[in-house]
Amino acid sequence: MLSIAIDMDETIADPIKKAREWYYRDYGKTFTTEELHGKTLTDILPPEHKDKIKEYLHTPGFFRDLEIFPHAQEVIAALNKKYKVYIVSAAMEFPTSLRDKYDWLQEFFPFLNWRQYCFCGDKSIVNADFMIDDLVRNFENFKGKPLLYTGHHNIHIEGYERILNWEDAAVKLL
Amino acid sequence: MLSIAIDMDETIADPIKKAREWYYRDYGKTFTTEELHGKTLTDILPPEHKDKIKEYLHTPGFFRDLEIFPHAQEVIAALNKKYKVYIVSAAMEFPTSLRDKYDWLQEFFPFLNWRQYCFCGDKSIVNADFMIDDLVRNFENFKGKPLLYTGHHNIHIEGYERILNWEDAAVKLL
Repeated sequence: MLSIAIDMDETIADPIKKAREWYYRDYGKTFTTEELHGKTLTDILPPEHKDKIKEYLHTPGFFRDLEIFPHAQEVIAALNKKYKVYIVSAAMEFPTSLRDKYDWLQEFFPFLNWRQYCFCGDKSIVNADFMIDDLVRNFENFKGKPLLYTGHHNIHIEGYERILNWEDAAVKLL
Repeated sequence: MLSIAIDMDETIADPIKKAREWYYRDYGKTFTTEELHGKTLTDILPPEHKDKIKEYLHTPGFFRDLEIFPHAQEVIAALNKKYKVYIVSAAMEFPTSLRDKYDWLQEFFPFLNWRQYCFCGDKSIVNADFMIDDLVRNFENFKGKPLLYTGHHNIHIEGYERILNWEDAAVKLL
């Protein structure tokens, strides 16, 4: 059975939506889709607020109630029957996120077992046949086939097969 | 640079010593080295206490102040200059351990970076050139060279190159 390593943030869970909401709560300013096109949220913040996003990500609970990406649940349930599915998150930068991410996975993916979770610092240690991820740096040492999950920040990156959304993943992998 | 995945429990940290102490605290009974020879602690507990060890391992803080194995610190510091070192723990069964293990690594291995930590459910996802582990089940899908870290429970297992202790690891790997 082939294996798939599936990323969490900006692949199945939406920390950017929440960070934008918190930023709006704190500064009364929001950002348009056009402003984010080809950029990260940190890229477009004013210099004095650059560190704000990391502060949010270090807040206990931030990752606990993130919105799940559309159709991630049912498509990953189907993938789980055809592949060895692992959820692999580079979570170590934010140690308060570890338990939140575990609990989030338990809630939204009850059909996955904790044996299928992997929280690492650096994905160069990950071995799988496919990796679905929105960050190309996670593909650097990867021996399997990378599948770039499209997000506003990676829209201009070329040279990778893409997963546009979870319906597209179903078409390509099921 | 070659990579080494190093296990935590019973390889660099001693949960068994602590579990024996807690069991003595709760039941006034301890176990000799002879009783543990070739067995796990759970193996030798009376039937009515078999679940006690898991209960200990699920207790917040249990993994935070485990004793470190002799010479693990200085030998891993030296390995870290010669290899890409990862600390890989199958921690997901005990979600309360995640933060404790992170904090323990920060305290005892300040020369390692969080990028070098990996907490997984199942080590079949791990890719490295060497794996030092006391549990042979973690070698099952491993493509690199397994090195069995000797412990009382694996003393009768044959067919693996062994690391007897961290001084032995220095001789074999440095």
